[in-house]
Amino acid sequence: MAKRPTMDDVAREAEVSQATVSMVLNDAQAGRVSDETAQRVRDAAARLGYRTNMHAKVLREGKAQIIGLIGDEVATSPFAGAMILGAQQQAWKRGYVLLTVDTAGSANLEGAAIEMLQSYRVAGVLYAAMYHRILEVPRSLRTVRTVCLNAQDADGRVPSVFPDEERGGREATEHLLAAGHRRIGIINIQAGDESLPAATGRLVGYRAALEAAGLPVDPDLIRHGHGTYEDGLNQLPGLMELDDPPTAIFCANDRTALGAYHALAARGLSVPGDVSIVGFDDQTILEQMFSPRLTTFQLPLAQLGRLAVDTLLDGTKGSDRLPVTCSLVPRQSVSPAKVLL
Amino acid sequence: MAKRPTMDDVAREAEVSQATVSMVLNDAQAGRVSDETAQRVRDAAARLGYRTNMHAKVLREGKAQIIGLIGDEVATSPFAGAMILGAQQQAWKRGYVLLTVDTAGSANLEGAAIEMLQSYRVAGVLYAAMYHRILEVPRSLRTVRTVCLNAQDADGRVPSVFPDEERGGREATEHLLAAGHRRIGIINIQAGDESLPAATGRLVGYRAALEAAGLPVDPDLIRHGHGTYEDGLNQLPGLMELDDPPTAIFCANDRTALGAYHALAARGLSVPGDVSIVGFDDQTILEQMFSPRLTTFQLPLAQLGRLAVDTLLDGTKGSDRLPVTCSLVPRQSVSPAKVLL
Repeated sequence: MAKRPTMDDVAREAEVSQATVSMVLNDAQAGRVSDETAQRVRDAAARLGYRTNMHAKVLREGKAQIIGLIGDEVATSPFAGAMILGAQQQAWKRGYVLLTVDTAGSANLEGAAIEMLQSYRVAGVLYAAMYHRILEVPRSLRTVRTVCLNAQDADGRVPSVFPDEERGGREATEHLLAAGHRRIGIINIQAGDESLPAATGRLVGYRAALEAAGLPVDPDLIRHGHGTYEDGLNQLPGLMELDDPPTAIFCANDRTALGAYHALAARGLSVPGDVSIVGFDDQTILEQMFSPRLTTFQLPLAQLGRLAVDTLLDGTKGSDRLPVTCSLVPRQSVSPAKVLL
Repeated sequence: MAKRPTMDDVAREAEVSQATVSMVLNDAQAGRVSDETAQRVRDAAARLGYRTNMHAKVLREGKAQIIGLIGDEVATSPFAGAMILGAQQQAWKRGYVLLTVDTAGSANLEGAAIEMLQSYRVAGVLYAAMYHRILEVPRSLRTVRTVCLNAQDADGRVPSVFPDEERGGREATEHLLAAGHRRIGIINIQAGDESLPAATGRLVGYRAALEAAGLPVDPDLIRHGHGTYEDGLNQLPGLMELDDPPTAIFCANDRTALGAYHALAARGLSVPGDVSIVGFDDQTILEQMFSPRLTTFQLPLAQLGRLAVDTLLDGTKGSDRLPVTCSLVPRQSVSPAKVLL
């Protein structure tokens, strides 16, 4: 392994003193070193592959160009990658690097991570949930700028960047209404857990869309699971065995939609010929398993990451609540409702 | 936001000089500060929540307790999370933190990442592929300790930690042989790309197992796809339409196995009643979609991450090639071959 060049090596190469090198590379040479000498130092540094020591820079400036990201289940979430990449790319664009810690849900590890990030004098911390949650921000983050990412601060102390679940649920239902459907079911991802805005918000949106269209909200059409493939399999029959079954179903995530597809096929029903389906999340790994391809709503993962970084560095102008719109991905699982003659 | 306490604040709180605080908190007080005073300083620091400045420590010691991880497609790989978590947890255990960069496959970003990690004086770099590959390690990593993670250095300059694909393929086939199967097909993930050891190695293992059992390797039983769900769907019929079709199939990844399941169901054939299946990878998100549940081989992702960290910090004793065994996850998709009377 080659040795890493030091400031001494640069001084020797440029035939100047180490102090001169230090002044030039730290942009403190004005009036003390000639332009010609400064250029000679820079050329020598480039030739040798000398790199600034960021730690010295941090000690001079008091704060590191590092943003910490603390996430709760990074390893197992299908949403973590795109969100973290969005944050990383925006951080780099702004001259920062992203130091990510996966706490795997451990409070001890989280405490240690906060200690560690503080000891590195990070410019701020993104406190991230891998599944959209309302959560308590740890007290130990009070001494560092913090933004909630894919999460909402229960106490409203820090800015929160999260998907607009309610609008997503409303637009998913409106997409089915626009195709002429009037009996629209929902298989939701979780009932009654107020800390999970994906479940509560998407259902609120579903109801709001029906009400705005002047349609009744029929409790028989509202089913709940836990967001799994099996929930789609298991909840579908109850809907289709109603006296007046739905002609369209909003599945509040893609996994549930896949189960619903397979349960419909098992009953000899086709998508969208017999039943139209809209999913939610746009999970890439599942996409090719849908035949026909699933119309769904895309979680704005990369955008959440980018906005959280900008909010951390720039602050907010108005509200600290920053919902981000989910966007319709129209594919092949919705067709116009049949007109009953 | 509360202000971050400084060394001055600790000095005031403990009623000593800033120099005394500095000596105590940097463990340089021996013989210069009384034990009682040292304790008073430590108590004051704890009371105020004062944290050591890691950057000062790095400047004193020359190297940071940071390990860099450069990955090529972290955001989109289903394997990234567990591998990075394994590396992070082992790094923490050893007193290091992990600074991860997702290059999203961009050579420019990779170059910038290496510059950045060097400027932070990292102790070493894990150069990671999200899908097992044989690759060239960038020249700019020659001045820093490097270990290939889930990848093999084409030039053999640096230690490489990767899954033992050949052994995995052999053991998958042996598992079917042990159940009495003699006609065993394979739907492999990619043909002929020597830089993808998952494809080449698993096929070599399949052949080796058949040969060791004294069975012919029938080219008709070897099919290739690209590792997708659709490959399973599309390659299965050709196998089953042979005059002497297989009674068992090794699908060289789980997605292909799921396609094979559905193609078998479409032909009215059952798993494992008519055809036994073994998959590969053990992808959690797919697991619940298999009915019956899929017998597969688990990629040792967390273990790869841990071993790479240990190798980076400790070096290797013998070979620089460090294959890690994939382990059988027996579930319900293999049954004994029917005995022909």
